[in-house]
Amino acid sequence: MNIGILGLGLIGGSLGLDLRSHGHHVIGVSRRASTCQTAVAIGSVDEASIDMNVLAVAEVVFICTPLGLIVPTIEQLITFLPTTTVLTDVGSVKTPIVQAVSPIWHNFIGGHPMAGTADSGIEAALKNLFIRRPYVLTPTSTTPTSAIEIVEELVKQIGSDIYHCAPQQHDRAVSWISHLPVMISASLISGCMAQSDIEVLKLSQSLASSGFKDTSRVGGGNPELGVMMAKYNRDALLNSLSQYRDNLDEIIELIEQENWLRLEDRLRFTQSNRPSFIKD
Amino acid sequence: MNIGILGLGLIGGSLGLDLRSHGHHVIGVSRRASTCQTAVAIGSVDEASIDMNVLAVAEVVFICTPLGLIVPTIEQLITFLPTTTVLTDVGSVKTPIVQAVSPIWHNFIGGHPMAGTADSGIEAALKNLFIRRPYVLTPTSTTPTSAIEIVEELVKQIGSDIYHCAPQQHDRAVSWISHLPVMISASLISGCMAQSDIEVLKLSQSLASSGFKDTSRVGGGNPELGVMMAKYNRDALLNSLSQYRDNLDEIIELIEQENWLRLEDRLRFTQSNRPSFIKD
Repeated sequence: MNIGILGLGLIGGSLGLDLRSHGHHVIGVSRRASTCQTAVAIGSVDEASIDMNVLAVAEVVFICTPLGLIVPTIEQLITFLPTTTVLTDVGSVKTPIVQAVSPIWHNFIGGHPMAGTADSGIEAALKNLFIRRPYVLTPTSTTPTSAIEIVEELVKQIGSDIYHCAPQQHDRAVSWISHLPVMISASLISGCMAQSDIEVLKLSQSLASSGFKDTSRVGGGNPELGVMMAKYNRDALLNSLSQYRDNLDEIIELIEQENWLRLEDRLRFTQSNRPSFIKD
Repeated sequence: MNIGILGLGLIGGSLGLDLRSHGHHVIGVSRRASTCQTAVAIGSVDEASIDMNVLAVAEVVFICTPLGLIVPTIEQLITFLPTTTVLTDVGSVKTPIVQAVSPIWHNFIGGHPMAGTADSGIEAALKNLFIRRPYVLTPTSTTPTSAIEIVEELVKQIGSDIYHCAPQQHDRAVSWISHLPVMISASLISGCMAQSDIEVLKLSQSLASSGFKDTSRVGGGNPELGVMMAKYNRDALLNSLSQYRDNLDEIIELIEQENWLRLEDRLRFTQSNRPSFIKD
């Protein structure tokens, strides 16, 4: 199959490696010529160009640009495509993408491969990045069955676990387990830094250990990515933040009231329920 | 030197292994005879007893019981001891311990070795557990210099990095980097579980990945330990929780106002400041 990949970063580059290993002919497009050269050199694509009209011969195109560029890129791309081309994206928020693209391209299905590393860019591309990782597909009532089946078959080939849901369900789920943690983790770091006693701050920095390290990790991540999550998944994230704050307030109240029995119940509840989110 | 260890769990047992390897004669005391036998068998102590009057010959005694038992144990122990015996504890909160013990035992210095593993009990004891880990000592204006020097020398022998501070400073620092993370992490888990849409909850559980795993880790830990932190470090923890909530509210407000520039500034600040807390 001729497969296009528009956007040759970690995700696009890794998809290319796996799809080529399953015998597909992969055509890459990047805005930068140097990225195109690297993608060919590392075997992530068969050919690459800065000109997106090379994708006119692709049967399926994966849009792998940053979140904010997905819709404008598709708007430009579809002027070159036959109506039979299946489009899918890999954005980490689905509702605004699906709402914007569905009316302008019939053969579209939103997707989100939930895989990655701390690195980015074509140099970070990895073989088998998606094996046994969730890959969410968000077809709507108007998505053609043929488009769903074609993308699903490719996702199976790269070894992912496929989940189907509505775009809104995806966005609410990731707001809880991916976007909310970034905001509460960032608040931990900024709270610590706001200490007025400089000696206690220095001591905190010296004594911080694995507990602080883990809880603060995602709050110390890429700022642009954090803003994208908040911008594109604003409603779901605000809802999660509000419910999270209610839960935090309940814990604060139990400590204020010195209600140690109920606090222990609460911590026993969180201890026993955490494993339902953790695979290994 | 004759050294006593009262409480043979992970910390007491590990201290014994290291102190013996530096040539000290280590006398262990546990409430359970089987623990005494294990401690001798694994080489953590030279001798062990369920009877604390064996500690009358020790020059220094480390109190390694759970936090809530430190003060009552010391009250009982000192009826057997000559006034020259140096006492120190390993509790993770210092103010209430130091305030209770200082008036009843002159030769006392509070301590907190910041080391551990996910395991507990004498079977979990490890050699070299304390090497390059912080060991906080909290002498007060009335602590005899000789007691400080004796404990400091032993802490140096086991390879720890020594920090001196007031008990209150220790407690405020650990409330930020150790106790607060437990409460915000537990609130994340209970917030997620409180979702009213069961399908979104199931999807969240399926899609949760390393970000959720790390941010929720300490909130899924030992409930009794979490309650102990809150109970014995209540004032400092409530203060940290209140300042943390202010920081969280600021982030919520930025998202509500769609003030993406200032949200990015904030996340850039947390990204650039996190490394000051992280050693590796």
